[in-house]
Amino acid sequence: MPERKKTRTATAGTVRLGSGYPVVIQSMTKTATTDVEKTLRQVRRLAAAGCGLVRIAVPTKADTQAFGKIAARSPVPLIADIHFSPARAIEAIEAGAGKIRLNPGNIKKRDDIERIIDCAKRHGTAIRIGVNEASIRDLKRDVAAGERVALMLDEMTEYVRVFEKAGFENLVLSAKSADTVRTIEANRAISGRFDYPIHIGLTHAGLAEDAIVSSSVAIGTLLAEGIGDTIRVSIAGDPVQEAEIAGQILLSLGLRESGRPQLVVCPTCGRCQSDVVGLARKVRMILKKIHQPIRVAVMGCVVNGPGEAADADVAVCAGAGKGFIYRKGKKVAAASEKDLPEALRKEIERLSGGLQGRQQSQ
Amino acid sequence: MPERKKTRTATAGTVRLGSGYPVVIQSMTKTATTDVEKTLRQVRRLAAAGCGLVRIAVPTKADTQAFGKIAARSPVPLIADIHFSPARAIEAIEAGAGKIRLNPGNIKKRDDIERIIDCAKRHGTAIRIGVNEASIRDLKRDVAAGERVALMLDEMTEYVRVFEKAGFENLVLSAKSADTVRTIEANRAISGRFDYPIHIGLTHAGLAEDAIVSSSVAIGTLLAEGIGDTIRVSIAGDPVQEAEIAGQILLSLGLRESGRPQLVVCPTCGRCQSDVVGLARKVRMILKKIHQPIRVAVMGCVVNGPGEAADADVAVCAGAGKGFIYRKGKKVAAASEKDLPEALRKEIERLSGGLQGRQQSQ
Repeated sequence: MPERKKTRTATAGTVRLGSGYPVVIQSMTKTATTDVEKTLRQVRRLAAAGCGLVRIAVPTKADTQAFGKIAARSPVPLIADIHFSPARAIEAIEAGAGKIRLNPGNIKKRDDIERIIDCAKRHGTAIRIGVNEASIRDLKRDVAAGERVALMLDEMTEYVRVFEKAGFENLVLSAKSADTVRTIEANRAISGRFDYPIHIGLTHAGLAEDAIVSSSVAIGTLLAEGIGDTIRVSIAGDPVQEAEIAGQILLSLGLRESGRPQLVVCPTCGRCQSDVVGLARKVRMILKKIHQPIRVAVMGCVVNGPGEAADADVAVCAGAGKGFIYRKGKKVAAASEKDLPEALRKEIERLSGGLQGRQQSQ
Repeated sequence: MPERKKTRTATAGTVRLGSGYPVVIQSMTKTATTDVEKTLRQVRRLAAAGCGLVRIAVPTKADTQAFGKIAARSPVPLIADIHFSPARAIEAIEAGAGKIRLNPGNIKKRDDIERIIDCAKRHGTAIRIGVNEASIRDLKRDVAAGERVALMLDEMTEYVRVFEKAGFENLVLSAKSADTVRTIEANRAISGRFDYPIHIGLTHAGLAEDAIVSSSVAIGTLLAEGIGDTIRVSIAGDPVQEAEIAGQILLSLGLRESGRPQLVVCPTCGRCQSDVVGLARKVRMILKKIHQPIRVAVMGCVVNGPGEAADADVAVCAGAGKGFIYRKGKKVAAASEKDLPEALRKEIERLSGGLQGRQQSQ
């Protein structure tokens, strides 16, 4: 697990954000906020998919009214996404937002900000200062890409100063761009200058087929450097998929325990003499029913096979026409290629049944 | 683009590896190497998908013989993947390998290594020292995860010393694990100690659905820190998919130019009053026929819409029942929701036709 950069703690309802707490996954509803039941269903699906916080857009007064009804029944604290309107910020705080997000690119008047700060203080509401490259003040088409990170950092610094002067510290910071490299650079810079918790993500990464890689690169790089206390994957599509990809990113860096099996599969090459990918797909189906964090390796040759077997709870090295099954690194059975899936199923169920038994008896 | 850590240059046939040259994508054939025609077809598909190098397993003498025939007709230099057998290394070098890969975990005798070095020197062949966590010497199940990176670094250092004593510098180094965090840590350590070009990748990342995120996180993080001169994504599946994901990783970090359009899409939220995802899918289809690096943004509201439009060659901000089309940040047309795809298609084709015209006249 990467060592996290030390930050203060922000409090959004029952959720704490910062280096002293696990990285929190969040996403955003895509339903019309005024449709309370539909939005609430999406909030619940997101919470079930691993979101500790859910953000909701509230462009109109009808939306902040609906927001209050949703917040009252939500399983997780809600964040109100504010743009342009100080009135919406105050309404959302009073309606029970655990946190609100302000965009320095479109709420700029100092007395507006100070009124929102006062209200958030009274209600114990967290505020994210969310700088977006696309909506920062003064951004013109002719600002060179290399100068935009500095512009985002300036914008952030100026805004943070207003909060600090008002004695408000329940802050989360974010700086997003649609560009992976500028998102990484902006967050490195902000993390270097401030010790508030950081929210990371790309502003928008596109359709899922284009977005998974760039989101993983941007968010993964920052987390691997210890930066990031809450993350959001932004995909044009079902927000549950955003939560699932965010979960995979955290899992890959050991920042989250899945409680589920891990399947290691060799990529196969010219050494491989059996259908390793077909076998792996069968094992993946078997593992869908297992709810223990066991490690299973499906390998196709002797180069890494025995080494991965030593690391796995259950492993198979598949060769020409037959394969060997390993239990915690010790060869325990041989089976023909045809019988391998069934033999593996038995071994996996034996092990996970044993684990379950042990867990229950504790 | 991240600044790349300065390295020496290695030469594998016509391909140079190191910080003075673009990051090279590589993959590995998964056909039986002795099936020359089938393997050659896969090599050609990989080259077409962006691989500058292709690696081939040569476990038997029949494989190194086939390797020679494949190398003679391959569009890119080939790498022979050597394990256990010094004889295969020598045969592969003599058969025309641009580079060979040795695994310190299974070729250990000093005079074997020196014989291979002598042969590689005579033929100008590059050698990758490829340490795998799963196959390093002395790896026992009880070596704690935290000590394995140090073990990989020791193994690498000992091996490199043999090469340096023999005056051989045409080296590439790699340290792989199935674990994302240890792969990142091992490569940071190796990059800190040596200045040879580095090959990065996870040993095996699993089936595609499990592998894309962890591969993007591991390889992306290292590249974002300037580490990595050639990359391989290891997926249990079609190697062309490995090359495509590798390409997306490089693209997301600006380490490669696609020459293709980029599609930015807002993730949508409660502010959105039209089917942005449906519109984006239509635009994605239109863009399949365009072969210029234009930037197109499909946005669903006024928060980031105008800012992204300013950055895009063509943009649309879709609202309730209608949308506005922007050309390089200037609003140029309005259309009903139904007519938007066609209006966008015209604008995109006008622009790309114009670009094509300009390119041809240069």
